[in-house]
Amino acid sequence: MNSEPKVAVIGSGSWATALAKILLNNEDSINWYFRSADNIEQFKRFRHNPNYLRGVEFDINRIQFYDDLNELVEASDILILTIPSAFLHEAFSKLTVPINQKFVVSAIKGIVPEYNQIVGHYLHESHQLPFERIGVITGPCHAEEVALERLSYLTIACPNIKRARDFGTKLDCEYIRTHVSDDIFGTEYAAVLKNIVAIASGIVHGLRYGDNFQAVLIANAIQEIKRFVDKVHPITRDIKSSAYLGDLLVTSYSQFSRNRTFGAMIGKGYTTRTAQIEMHMVAEGYYATKSIHEINETYKVKMPICDAVYNILYGNVPPAVEIRQLTNKLR
Amino acid sequence: MNSEPKVAVIGSGSWATALAKILLNNEDSINWYFRSADNIEQFKRFRHNPNYLRGVEFDINRIQFYDDLNELVEASDILILTIPSAFLHEAFSKLTVPINQKFVVSAIKGIVPEYNQIVGHYLHESHQLPFERIGVITGPCHAEEVALERLSYLTIACPNIKRARDFGTKLDCEYIRTHVSDDIFGTEYAAVLKNIVAIASGIVHGLRYGDNFQAVLIANAIQEIKRFVDKVHPITRDIKSSAYLGDLLVTSYSQFSRNRTFGAMIGKGYTTRTAQIEMHMVAEGYYATKSIHEINETYKVKMPICDAVYNILYGNVPPAVEIRQLTNKLR
Repeated sequence: MNSEPKVAVIGSGSWATALAKILLNNEDSINWYFRSADNIEQFKRFRHNPNYLRGVEFDINRIQFYDDLNELVEASDILILTIPSAFLHEAFSKLTVPINQKFVVSAIKGIVPEYNQIVGHYLHESHQLPFERIGVITGPCHAEEVALERLSYLTIACPNIKRARDFGTKLDCEYIRTHVSDDIFGTEYAAVLKNIVAIASGIVHGLRYGDNFQAVLIANAIQEIKRFVDKVHPITRDIKSSAYLGDLLVTSYSQFSRNRTFGAMIGKGYTTRTAQIEMHMVAEGYYATKSIHEINETYKVKMPICDAVYNILYGNVPPAVEIRQLTNKLR
Repeated sequence: MNSEPKVAVIGSGSWATALAKILLNNEDSINWYFRSADNIEQFKRFRHNPNYLRGVEFDINRIQFYDDLNELVEASDILILTIPSAFLHEAFSKLTVPINQKFVVSAIKGIVPEYNQIVGHYLHESHQLPFERIGVITGPCHAEEVALERLSYLTIACPNIKRARDFGTKLDCEYIRTHVSDDIFGTEYAAVLKNIVAIASGIVHGLRYGDNFQAVLIANAIQEIKRFVDKVHPITRDIKSSAYLGDLLVTSYSQFSRNRTFGAMIGKGYTTRTAQIEMHMVAEGYYATKSIHEINETYKVKMPICDAVYNILYGNVPPAVEIRQLTNKLR
């Protein structure tokens, strides 16, 4: 490892683009992996990501692009994962270069479906990565507001707090403040769960429940998230911190939230299939709903909100009926 | 007292009107105090409150109107207070009828400025009302959504839980769910503090901070509220409940919030005086900011958000400067 570790972004979506923008405030250069060589060519030609945050212009001389994941990993010390969790295992199963001496930071907020594991567990078990080399970046932070350079706070979680802090300094800039945490499991599970809650929030909005009920839903949701993460990984944490409650709020209340938009379409009567086609994408929370439901078969935590979303998305229960029942379980 | 206690609403604003509408789902008739006899005449002629929630039509044969507070108190067993806290002492100092055998429920959410006391403390000390005869109604609940009959949850707090529950049954209906609490001090202080936070939320919105920062602000705010109420009245409570966190959320995130609107005008550069004139009203949080600041001189709780609002509204510090400093205190 060089004296100055080389940072790589793996993925080409909006959050990848926002993180690349943030990193280039401090780093001389970064490595960046795109699955599509065509997209790299277009990026170089137009000096912006052809598909996401197009308003953000990059100095392409400071970016080393890769469409070969092994080459990128070979050339990098810190790997920031921003590809959808559904594609992580497929991408990483082709790795021949070991990653167990890297610092791998998940910015994914999803469950690896092949294993029903959050990214940290997956990296540890399937890629022999020690927990102290696993990090999590969590919000509240919509990529769109990073593009606008609106002040945002990020939490960097890692069991090795010094490593979290050192990495944080690479992100700190005029519009980004970082804080650290040792709770990689809690932050990651909370980030996954908040996407399910955002779908619920969208569904009730689509069903024309108002702001009064939304507030009840979200207050109950943070209690549900606390019950779950305290059961799955019982350590001392303040669920009211920005990394947990703040992240839930920005996802549930913001117009930028794709999971909330997806939920609103379901609430208005779209089928899940039609909603996905209309949105040209799949909301992470759609998969998370199923995975968390399965994971919770072991833990048996009381999760009325996640259960309701599961029943609507996977159990074919009409949203109006399911949410009506949910209203009796909240308080 | 008759077998069925008679309920009175004291006040004629939007929340008074919403509560009257709710009560008339279950009560045969209610007593209702208006300061202005003219408004009573207009109400009778048009069958709706001439000034608030005009879309809600009432059966005026089921309402006994009063413009004499003593007469109303004489004729009633349960008094629901919905007048602005700034006018409560003036109104109640004219009482000649004792209230210490009534059940007095505060729906006010403000500080009595003459005493720097929440309504419960004021009623207890100035009107010899035992705590077990003091109640608090708290949201999350915007009156405007009650008018639309959108599902809303109310918490009724009273040290006498049976009394809270009995009163709750008078409010329960198709679109209102009530729950009970014994925490009259915590719910009332939290309801006061959330108005100050809503002003802060409006200010940062007016200054063009985005959703990411709003989420950080609100996550920090609920921690600040918890610190304060736990210090002032240390009992076991879950600050994440609807009565505390939910109430904060609906006020900070909703378009219906007058305190947030007031804050947004301040953030955009209006003076407090101009903002108040433009709004044709004074946001409760404006007075609460000063009162809480003074109350906290005793308790010395760390309250960076309330302090920032105080410095802007009463210390003449430019909002951009004050909020910039606040951003360094949040995390």
